Amino acid sequence: MSKFPTALKRLVLGRPFRSDRLAHTLLPKRIALPIFASDALSSVAYAPEEIFLTLSVAGLSAYAYAPWIGVAVALVMLVVVASYRQNVHAYPSGGGDYEVAGTNLGGKFGLTVASALLVDYVLTVAVSTSSGVANIGSAIPFVADHKVLFAVAIVALLAALNLRGVRESGKAFAIPTYGFIIGIFGMVVWGLFEVFSGTEMKAESAGFELHAEQSLTGFAFVFLILRSFSSGAAALTGVEAISNGVPAFQKPKSKNAATTLLMMGVLAVTMLIGIITLAIVTDVKYAEDPARQLTGTPAGYEQKTIVAQIAHAVFADFPPAFYYISFSTGIILLLAANTAFNGFPVLGSILAQDRYLPRQLHTRGDRLAFSNGILFLAAFALVLIFAFDAEVTKLIQLYIVGVFVSFTVSQAGMIRHWNRLLAKETDGGVRRRMRRSQAVNAVGLTLTSTVLVIVLITKFLLGAWIAIAAMVAIFLLMTAIRRHYDRVADELAEADQAPAVLPSRNHAIVLVSKLHRPTLRALAYAKAVRPDVLEAVTVNVDDADTRALVADWDRHKFSVPLKVIESPYREITRPVLEYVKRKRGANPRDVVTVFIPEYVVGRWWEQILHNQSALRLKGRLLFQPGVMVTSVPWQLASSEKAKERNRRVRPAAGDVRRGLYVAGRAATAAKPKATEPPKATEPPKPPEPPKPDKEKTG
Amino acid sequence: MSKFPTALKRLVLGRPFRSDRLAHTLLPKRIALPIFASDALSSVAYAPEEIFLTLSVAGLSAYAYAPWIGVAVALVMLVVVASYRQNVHAYPSGGGDYEVAGTNLGGKFGLTVASALLVDYVLTVAVSTSSGVANIGSAIPFVADHKVLFAVAIVALLAALNLRGVRESGKAFAIPTYGFIIGIFGMVVWGLFEVFSGTEMKAESAGFELHAEQSLTGFAFVFLILRSFSSGAAALTGVEAISNGVPAFQKPKSKNAATTLLMMGVLAVTMLIGIITLAIVTDVKYAEDPARQLTGTPAGYEQKTIVAQIAHAVFADFPPAFYYISFSTGIILLLAANTAFNGFPVLGSILAQDRYLPRQLHTRGDRLAFSNGILFLAAFALVLIFAFDAEVTKLIQLYIVGVFVSFTVSQAGMIRHWNRLLAKETDGGVRRRMRRSQAVNAVGLTLTSTVLVIVLITKFLLGAWIAIAAMVAIFLLMTAIRRHYDRVADELAEADQAPAVLPSRNHAIVLVSKLHRPTLRALAYAKAVRPDVLEAVTVNVDDADTRALVADWDRHKFSVPLKVIESPYREITRPVLEYVKRKRGANPRDVVTVFIPEYVVGRWWEQILHNQSALRLKGRLLFQPGVMVTSVPWQLASSEKAKERNRRVRPAAGDVRRGLYVAGRAATAAKPKATEPPKATEPPKPPEPPKPDKEKTG
Repeated sequence: MSKFPTALKRLVLGRPFRSDRLAHTLLPKRIALPIFASDALSSVAYAPEEIFLTLSVAGLSAYAYAPWIGVAVALVMLVVVASYRQNVHAYPSGGGDYEVAGTNLGGKFGLTVASALLVDYVLTVAVSTSSGVANIGSAIPFVADHKVLFAVAIVALLAALNLRGVRESGKAFAIPTYGFIIGIFGMVVWGLFEVFSGTEMKAESAGFELHAEQSLTGFAFVFLILRSFSSGAAALTGVEAISNGVPAFQKPKSKNAATTLLMMGVLAVTMLIGIITLAIVTDVKYAEDPARQLTGTPAGYEQKTIVAQIAHAVFADFPPAFYYISFSTGIILLLAANTAFNGFPVLGSILAQDRYLPRQLHTRGDRLAFSNGILFLAAFALVLIFAFDAEVTKLIQLYIVGVFVSFTVSQAGMIRHWNRLLAKETDGGVRRRMRRSQAVNAVGLTLTSTVLVIVLITKFLLGAWIAIAAMVAIFLLMTAIRRHYDRVADELAEADQAPAVLPSRNHAIVLVSKLHRPTLRALAYAKAVRPDVLEAVTVNVDDADTRALVADWDRHKFSVPLKVIESPYREITRPVLEYVKRKRGANPRDVVTVFIPEYVVGRWWEQILHNQSALRLKGRLLFQPGVMVTSVPWQLASSEKAKERNRRVRPAAGDVRRGLYVAGRAATAAKPKATEPPKATEPPKPPEPPKPDKEKTG
Repeated sequence: MSKFPTALKRLVLGRPFRSDRLAHTLLPKRIALPIFASDALSSVAYAPEEIFLTLSVAGLSAYAYAPWIGVAVALVMLVVVASYRQNVHAYPSGGGDYEVAGTNLGGKFGLTVASALLVDYVLTVAVSTSSGVANIGSAIPFVADHKVLFAVAIVALLAALNLRGVRESGKAFAIPTYGFIIGIFGMVVWGLFEVFSGTEMKAESAGFELHAEQSLTGFAFVFLILRSFSSGAAALTGVEAISNGVPAFQKPKSKNAATTLLMMGVLAVTMLIGIITLAIVTDVKYAEDPARQLTGTPAGYEQKTIVAQIAHAVFADFPPAFYYISFSTGIILLLAANTAFNGFPVLGSILAQDRYLPRQLHTRGDRLAFSNGILFLAAFALVLIFAFDAEVTKLIQLYIVGVFVSFTVSQAGMIRHWNRLLAKETDGGVRRRMRRSQAVNAVGLTLTSTVLVIVLITKFLLGAWIAIAAMVAIFLLMTAIRRHYDRVADELAEADQAPAVLPSRNHAIVLVSKLHRPTLRALAYAKAVRPDVLEAVTVNVDDADTRALVADWDRHKFSVPLKVIESPYREITRPVLEYVKRKRGANPRDVVTVFIPEYVVGRWWEQILHNQSALRLKGRLLFQPGVMVTSVPWQLASSEKAKERNRRVRPAAGDVRRGLYVAGRAATAAKPKATEPPKATEPPKPPEPPKPDKEKTG
């Protein structure tokens, strides 16, 4: 059974790529923008909707507040972008908020940010997929009728693609992202032109009547406005992505990243305000509970997304444009979901380096660990999609907490960062620039912490508590892992005691099941090690087989004696363990070396058929003190296949975000670097002093 | 992820038992009967029902044939029992039909029997569970309303119990089996007494009218009678079980087994005839399609099992007896299902010995392999239960083919067996006894092959084709496995070429990630092996860590040089592989020994956190020719826990059937034998000539 998952994975993952195609490729701004900004830009698809939806509770009159809420969200967005431009300059290493918080405020704060971000990746997948399905469903009713099914299928597809190792290619991101931007801008420009030329545009819901669910006054009304603002703040999700991706930018990295960040902020704000404006112009009615709140609807009315309703109104005479808007919105949302699949392993790798997650997540080679991360992400996203029926409105209640926890802690960290630098800096001009940056971050902190409090107050009971509980759980888990690693490190610490004693006596045992070439090789190798005692041992599982083996052995007149261990219950592991234990005896300086001949096969199903007993025995021998276990492999012909297979490498999720790149077939010849054998070098030169701040004030 | 299944299993399986409780315990007849015969005896619960059900298609008049069909089934049963008494004497080793067919007719026939038996084990689970649920459902309507659910739950429970390692205890089998026998006999005796005393007993369905589905004449009617007989022949399933269990009997094994077989046959035939008689006396109407064929039924009528209807009629004034019959019938059917969970690994072990299944199934110690067998059995049984709605009638169409394939091939083998012996035997008395045995087997062959043909003709389209397709698939799979093992054996065969050359030069590499105690131990061990060259190697995954390591190394002034391998993409496996390959160079007589320090931890979740990179590297190094991989373990404190855990052993499914026995807590002190360390003995004495036939004519 242990091998079946591998086979299953092989089916899902397909063959890996060749290994000689790994190289560094840095991203120009025009490619980095679509890759890193798809998450943030796509959120303008659902943020305006959530503003209107929340206001609808108080009836149509409350819609008057929508533009102001939009402006408030836009303002927060611009401030956050300005703040993160400081982060990007100060921390170009790609650690993002986790690094900023950890470096300046201490590990616990870094871990808080990391927990928040991990939870957010799950929610990005769930929310973006659900919203994408809703947008496509606005054009194709069949999809709208089976939202959960389609959302599940898409998450499964994204997981499979990322498990298989599909590189985030610039083109695959650039076309849909720019397509979306052009679509939304085209719609806004054309819509405004129509307004000024006096054409009347009415959304399909324009003629409906919207009824308040409750009539709210005073404090309750203010609370509703704040809640609407909180939902609209979902537009800010994904803004931090660029700060995690600085290493993937072309040089000057920080400057380019900061510029891209600004471009993204301006685009997002413009689209947000544009959509809100058009929604008001076309008289869209978007209700929290359409069945109860809307009258005048046709039978079986399914509320379409606001973007789709606007597109329908603006391009009333030209349906292709409506379909274009719906699909490009749907697709950029799916790209945003994919973003999480790529960002997750990158963060995991950083956390693993700091020993908050299993070490193997840190080394790029560990596809298995990455795969588990992808499966984990997909599984939790699916749980959320099922639990909340793929309803964006329900999911969004969980979403924004994590983002703003991360924003707030990170900005606080930046203020501390500047204080530290200011304490050492004397140059007036530099100090002035630092003070200015610090001021930006201070405004950012004030604003994001305020929003965080508003979000917590207005959404806690609506679902934010689930996200918070998840963050706490992840925080505790990572703390526990770190504590475990620390404890093991203590236990293994070399201490000041005497250096390891040299073994006084090496007793070698060659395990024999049959007298064939692997056994002969193991015997020869064991002799080469020149042990003090050398003996061959076989376990008598089957009397007839054992007799034949003994006869064979005698015929060969080996100089090595063959001992037979009895095993009345046809076990192998236990009798060998007992024998080895007896041989080692009481002297702690004695060593027993067990030589195990192994057949190496190439196909997964062959592995089921071979070496299972050897594997188990090896696993158990490791628990015996003073025992070394030596595998002497014999490569069967079929192992060549596996060797060829192993020589290949697949792109890992998140490679592009780290500036790594697996070239396609065409690029092979141009990348000789990775094919050179690794150099065994002299120890690296003494470290240069770290310069995290070298571009800090740019 | 690789470790989660282990954790899951631990939850399901619970802690294993202590190891010092494994012993041989042989079964007296009174315990062997319930253990081996529960399958055969329990089938009298559904066989009569199927006879009536099939006949019902032609209307009430066809019921007149039921007693004759019953007699025919009983006759076949007695002949098969007589035949198998010969098998048991001739082949006391427990190989059963597989051994008889393979030895006398060749491997292909043995494999045919094995395929048929494997399919039959799956069907035994599905049919027995479904019938058990139907019988309990006759007493508790809630169970009848959720048949599939209860059947699934029971299969899952049986699988879990067998995974956990619950020994088939004599008591657990004896009480319900004897309880069932007493119940059925009590019912038959009391029923007949009532009949003779003139009391009228009417089943709840006595008053209904039964309509023919079609009016059948001529050939079609004969076909129906034959089909009814085929279904009734389901009573014979399980008869062969004793022939697989001879080694578990007390001495004289064959004689005791033969006696038990006869007891079982007599009991089964008596109960079968008794139930059919009572069904006719109480005027039971049992229809294939009650909704269409029965009139006069109350609203929502659910057809109860025949056994339940008879019990209800016979014990009309004493409901406890009715409940007793229903439950004891249900329970013995569940025991019969459990029987398959125990028989399956035993057969798997024998097939593995002949290399038709993975080798590790042969060694008792391999719990994992057994577990996979149990999961496989449960999974397929569940598929059948779902596919056929836990309906005994539908499942039984698939069931009997395998049994009769096995009967027929086995009897043919026995005839060949006697011919072989007769050719060598000269003693007149012995020859006479052999001839008599051969005649019994010949009658058996004639009868079982006739039944097989009838079953094939009457049931092929009704479902038997599924069973046959499954047998063919299993047959092909096992053939492919055997071919693979043979090919590997050829490839590994020592041949007559020169003995393995001794390695000329041993280049030792110690992998270092940090300078801690495991590394120091690995270094010391590597020195003890006195290689020609010894060097330490580290992979530079993280510049800062590597620098610290190099500084540390220099401070210690080891005599061994430390080389740093660059890894621009933070991989470990690939750079090490390339390095090792270069070091070995072109000389085929050179050997590279790679020493890998490993931490040994005790908890599954700790294993996720450690050694993952080492594991992967070890796996890949095995593919390099001329490389030995030596694990140098360092036992962390927590490994003690695992050692304690590993010292325990659980009973494996099928132990009792093989005469093995895991003693309970109370028996520990009394079984010192297994606690002795295994003896490394001189080679076993030259083999005695095998005596498979020593009891052959008893």
